[in-house]
Amino acid sequence: LKCTHDGFIETTIPVAKEIPLTVYLNDQEIVTLLCVSEHLRSLAVGFLKSEGLIKEREGIASVSLDEASRSVRIRAKENTDLMEKWFMRKTIGSSGARGSSFDDALNELTAQRVKSDLRIKDSQVLSLMEQLTTQSQVFRLTRGTHNSALATVDNILLFRSDVGRHNTLDKIYGECFLKGIPLDDKVLLTTGRISLEMLTKSFRMGIPILVSHSAATSLAISMANQIDMTLIGYVRAGSFFVYTSKERVMQTM
Amino acid sequence: LKCTHDGFIETTIPVAKEIPLTVYLNDQEIVTLLCVSEHLRSLAVGFLKSEGLIKEREGIASVSLDEASRSVRIRAKENTDLMEKWFMRKTIGSSGARGSSFDDALNELTAQRVKSDLRIKDSQVLSLMEQLTTQSQVFRLTRGTHNSALATVDNILLFRSDVGRHNTLDKIYGECFLKGIPLDDKVLLTTGRISLEMLTKSFRMGIPILVSHSAATSLAISMANQIDMTLIGYVRAGSFFVYTSKERVMQTM
Repeated sequence: LKCTHDGFIETTIPVAKEIPLTVYLNDQEIVTLLCVSEHLRSLAVGFLKSEGLIKEREGIASVSLDEASRSVRIRAKENTDLMEKWFMRKTIGSSGARGSSFDDALNELTAQRVKSDLRIKDSQVLSLMEQLTTQSQVFRLTRGTHNSALATVDNILLFRSDVGRHNTLDKIYGECFLKGIPLDDKVLLTTGRISLEMLTKSFRMGIPILVSHSAATSLAISMANQIDMTLIGYVRAGSFFVYTSKERVMQTM
Repeated sequence: LKCTHDGFIETTIPVAKEIPLTVYLNDQEIVTLLCVSEHLRSLAVGFLKSEGLIKEREGIASVSLDEASRSVRIRAKENTDLMEKWFMRKTIGSSGARGSSFDDALNELTAQRVKSDLRIKDSQVLSLMEQLTTQSQVFRLTRGTHNSALATVDNILLFRSDVGRHNTLDKIYGECFLKGIPLDDKVLLTTGRISLEMLTKSFRMGIPILVSHSAATSLAISMANQIDMTLIGYVRAGSFFVYTSKERVMQTM
């Protein structure tokens, strides 16, 4: 029912279609993700990889999607210890995500650094985020999804949309992992806010430059600073903020 | 670093402060929530209540916040079975949330109905969401938080802001639970999108009318329809959409 000053009218509007997807690793039920029903194999693989439950591409024997039962079954080299540890994790993030435990995430992050010579021009940041907005058709229609994209400094390579911010990254990660696409020379773009988990996920992917249409939280900024990831936020027509590692951003405008 | 066509300028901007808060129930570590450092006792209690780990207000012996270790310790009547069951849950929602298992949520929802004679005028919907926007100071400054509010049909009673959509509801739920404020005659307002989990959380609170500045997902709409909750979305200046149970909304404009 659309309610305006001109009256109440029955109307049809597009909505984001959310489905439950259950992921099995070697017949063990791992998780049920609520997600948009596209790129489900990539999502399942990306989730397992991001959570550290699968390691090498060569270790994956099969990835099969069953549309009827809304499940993806993955056969891979197993690590029972990892799986047990994963099930005991108790952190729920700012967005509600259960990632690795908070201490694990901190230790993992602060022990390492982003190593990349990638540079990006101010004009390229603006152009990439314009491309992201242009491709965000579903978002504009339903207002119910977040959009993320993997890009070179010039062009978007892979665009993914989902009701969950984290799912957009997992869909990209899974596809790149399966296809062997390197990520350490790429830029990751997203419409979603950058919380600690979004930053952690990007770091695990090996991304040197993360650009958000929205803002970043204090914890994400502090971590990005420690690991030397370039974090760019709040990109609007003609302007943006570089929160950390500004040496990767070149002034040309 | 602010980057515009006029050049690069070092600048200071406000950001949402995200902290890790660990919740203990009777010395058992339950969860670490990433959240904004306000109303932490309410958040911890609201989370446990929403997850079904505590039941009656009278069963709570103490709720103590330790700022130094960023933890809240709650002493309450224990239900060991519930806690064991909770730790085995595997659903991660559209926003990344681990809620109850998907099947549990479905069964819980479809077995019950919202019972409420509450009615709201179209003009009241618009006025309440204007009040929410006016109070959303932190959001406007940092762009990093979601805001929710508990309201009568006329006025906001309780306004809560957090980096996590779910946390805003848990902060409201916890405070009302501790103070014995009834929720079945109230309206819940939020800037966040309505996924299945946001709907489930509101249902557990006993809310009959849920209003979002954003859109709702297909699964949330379908569930709201089944349980007869009034779901209103996409409120803009002068207009909004009623997704379900429209009989609670009265045309007066």
